[in-house]
Amino acid sequence: MNRASLPHVVIIGAGFAGLWAARTLTGKPVRVTLVDRNNYHTFLPLLYQVGAAEIEPEQIAYPVRTLLRSRRNVSYIRAQVDRLDLVERFLLCNGQRVEFDYCIIATGSTTNFFGTRGADRFAFVLKNLDDSVVLRNHILSCFERAAYCADRERRRALLTFVIVGGGPTGIEFSGALAELIRGPLRKDFPALSPKEIRVCLVESAARVLSMFDAKSSAYTSRLLEKKGVEVLCGTGVKELRPGRVLLSDGSAVETETVVWTAGVTGERIASLDVPLGRGGRLIVDETLQVPGRRGCFIAGDLAYVEEQGRPLPMIAPAAVQQGRAAAMNILRLVRGGEAVPFVYRDKGAMVTIGRNAAVARIGTREFTGFWAWVIWLVIHLMNLIGFRNKLFVLMNWAWDYIVFEKSVRLILPSCCTSPGAKGCRMRRCGR
Amino acid sequence: MNRASLPHVVIIGAGFAGLWAARTLTGKPVRVTLVDRNNYHTFLPLLYQVGAAEIEPEQIAYPVRTLLRSRRNVSYIRAQVDRLDLVERFLLCNGQRVEFDYCIIATGSTTNFFGTRGADRFAFVLKNLDDSVVLRNHILSCFERAAYCADRERRRALLTFVIVGGGPTGIEFSGALAELIRGPLRKDFPALSPKEIRVCLVESAARVLSMFDAKSSAYTSRLLEKKGVEVLCGTGVKELRPGRVLLSDGSAVETETVVWTAGVTGERIASLDVPLGRGGRLIVDETLQVPGRRGCFIAGDLAYVEEQGRPLPMIAPAAVQQGRAAAMNILRLVRGGEAVPFVYRDKGAMVTIGRNAAVARIGTREFTGFWAWVIWLVIHLMNLIGFRNKLFVLMNWAWDYIVFEKSVRLILPSCCTSPGAKGCRMRRCGR
Repeated sequence: MNRASLPHVVIIGAGFAGLWAARTLTGKPVRVTLVDRNNYHTFLPLLYQVGAAEIEPEQIAYPVRTLLRSRRNVSYIRAQVDRLDLVERFLLCNGQRVEFDYCIIATGSTTNFFGTRGADRFAFVLKNLDDSVVLRNHILSCFERAAYCADRERRRALLTFVIVGGGPTGIEFSGALAELIRGPLRKDFPALSPKEIRVCLVESAARVLSMFDAKSSAYTSRLLEKKGVEVLCGTGVKELRPGRVLLSDGSAVETETVVWTAGVTGERIASLDVPLGRGGRLIVDETLQVPGRRGCFIAGDLAYVEEQGRPLPMIAPAAVQQGRAAAMNILRLVRGGEAVPFVYRDKGAMVTIGRNAAVARIGTREFTGFWAWVIWLVIHLMNLIGFRNKLFVLMNWAWDYIVFEKSVRLILPSCCTSPGAKGCRMRRCGR
Repeated sequence: MNRASLPHVVIIGAGFAGLWAARTLTGKPVRVTLVDRNNYHTFLPLLYQVGAAEIEPEQIAYPVRTLLRSRRNVSYIRAQVDRLDLVERFLLCNGQRVEFDYCIIATGSTTNFFGTRGADRFAFVLKNLDDSVVLRNHILSCFERAAYCADRERRRALLTFVIVGGGPTGIEFSGALAELIRGPLRKDFPALSPKEIRVCLVESAARVLSMFDAKSSAYTSRLLEKKGVEVLCGTGVKELRPGRVLLSDGSAVETETVVWTAGVTGERIASLDVPLGRGGRLIVDETLQVPGRRGCFIAGDLAYVEEQGRPLPMIAPAAVQQGRAAAMNILRLVRGGEAVPFVYRDKGAMVTIGRNAAVARIGTREFTGFWAWVIWLVIHLMNLIGFRNKLFVLMNWAWDYIVFEKSVRLILPSCCTSPGAKGCRMRRCGR
């Protein structure tokens, strides 16, 4: 079979949606090109653990080319897409023009600051591996700087950590940060008083984890407070300034560290002419196709899909299902059939709060506590790509669980934070 | 006991010499401050494996504070030393003045380009963790760029890797790079022809590994050639230009990657007034003290020490012995005694060439082959600091050995190499 004569499918993004689409098209009568700016797939659900110095960044990433090795009809280009034209059906990347017959746009999401003044300049985020390493380095650097800081006010600002957003990422990161601080960092910095260290979680709604029951929310807040996290519900963020965050209740918190987990918006490709839905996501029809652009699909966080009047959650299982569905629909079109509507199967949701504690919903039942945590562990480990990554993450978790150590407490690479560094290119580092 | 009244020892550098000095002074009647710009100790003998995508950078680093936890009389400052005054006995760092009674300067070594034109701008080096991650990212990026490069000459330049220096680092890195290329990268890039890929090792002396027997040198060259490395002995480097290296025989090699392992020089602190010995190292007397500066010691790579008319090798065991000896001498001075001469115990040397192959000298006997390789493995693993690091490195090696994969093939952090990055602060990245 002459492969060049087959219909060409371009998939943009090697996240959950893009990768599962590529898997679905493997061995089928199409030629597939997967484009991503990184040469690895990132397992985003564990990103917060990299930020909290618990696992190595390499352990939640997997080389795309290795994933595609046995898939002969799928090739990969490492590139940022400079232009995408759904009418003429081509994209520009690395200075080259790539034509296609079908496409799946799966570029995912990026942080939404909702126009909060100063947030784009001063907040840390947790959306990709770089972000998480920058955040880890920054937190450890704050402790190092506090260790030789004689000024009390300044030292308190260095040791105050504000997390904005009481959704899953905000909860998981605050829990992990609190455990990092109360465990290993307290032992590493015996000269710093625990009373000077503050972790605040700020949520504008009346309760955290609004996608769960009120009971689960209360459990989560109670547990975080027990770990030393101040949970401030009903409080919004008005403005970020250097060294300070202004809250909606008129108060201000002196801090060097604001971690913004409060919102996401679609990661759009410039020049792409598709109408916007809520939350900066792109509107698709019920088959996941761009309206009026037959054969052009959007899948994952970027797609705005409603289910019973509510937008689908931006979570990995939804992305996987959409990636698969878009790929199946392309195969239907290739065979001369019609695309069928996408149906979301809600498998539940889960959030861990730390050691032995999680909240999980399976179907309509909600669990909290140790068994929810065990389910969380098993499901995350099972879904992590690559046997080696599974093994290393499991070992890290076991190590952490048994000896109460977060193992990766290294300020590395030092480009952003070393005292000798001259300037830094990292977006939000502030130097 | 009032600790503040004890004599104050400052150790600059948490490498092998500095760390072993701190260990030796633990629990002794002195107050010790360890200063290092990184918050971790780096196990430099395995740095080349990070550069060759074999192990994670975190696995050869260990947090200094955690190493010092149980050592009550030792504290740590993360800082670059801005000034060191051996007459007034103080140093400046982080804008603070730290006074001391005794000091051990153990800042190690940095790359020596011997004035080769262009080398400081265009060569990659392997002297710290950042360097190794930059090199790993660059090599993987060269393959990615070659994958979509239609120009044959350009593609060959992207796939040509020149290693300068046939010493231990040059040999170990070329062997690991050749295995990375012939194994996993060939599988990841099936469209690239193996004939377009070149790895050259350039050595100005008549043979590689001149510190070993001629027989061991020949064995090493033969093995490298078998792995596909071209070994060019008797060839020096005249100049580095963008995309090209000029050799002493008048020829030129088109390449995007020159890795410089040919020389080291002492990593000196500016403003320090100590006479220079050969190789940019600082002259000390036979007790490791700076001449005329009683109580000020230099240990490790930075110290110029002769043994039977030849300078001591710049290797980890020599640094460990000197760090210990300097610390013991300080204790002698504190007790009112005199410093004793340092005696180097040569435990041998070893270099691995890759899978199942190494050269080892123990005493005056030299081994090559499988058993030398096993000795190399065991000794490196034993000396790596931290049980967790030992375990993870061992697992990485086993994984590599069994499934022929170098596991860490990620271009990460993407600051330096991602197509979308705007500018870069990394020294030798050339963007």
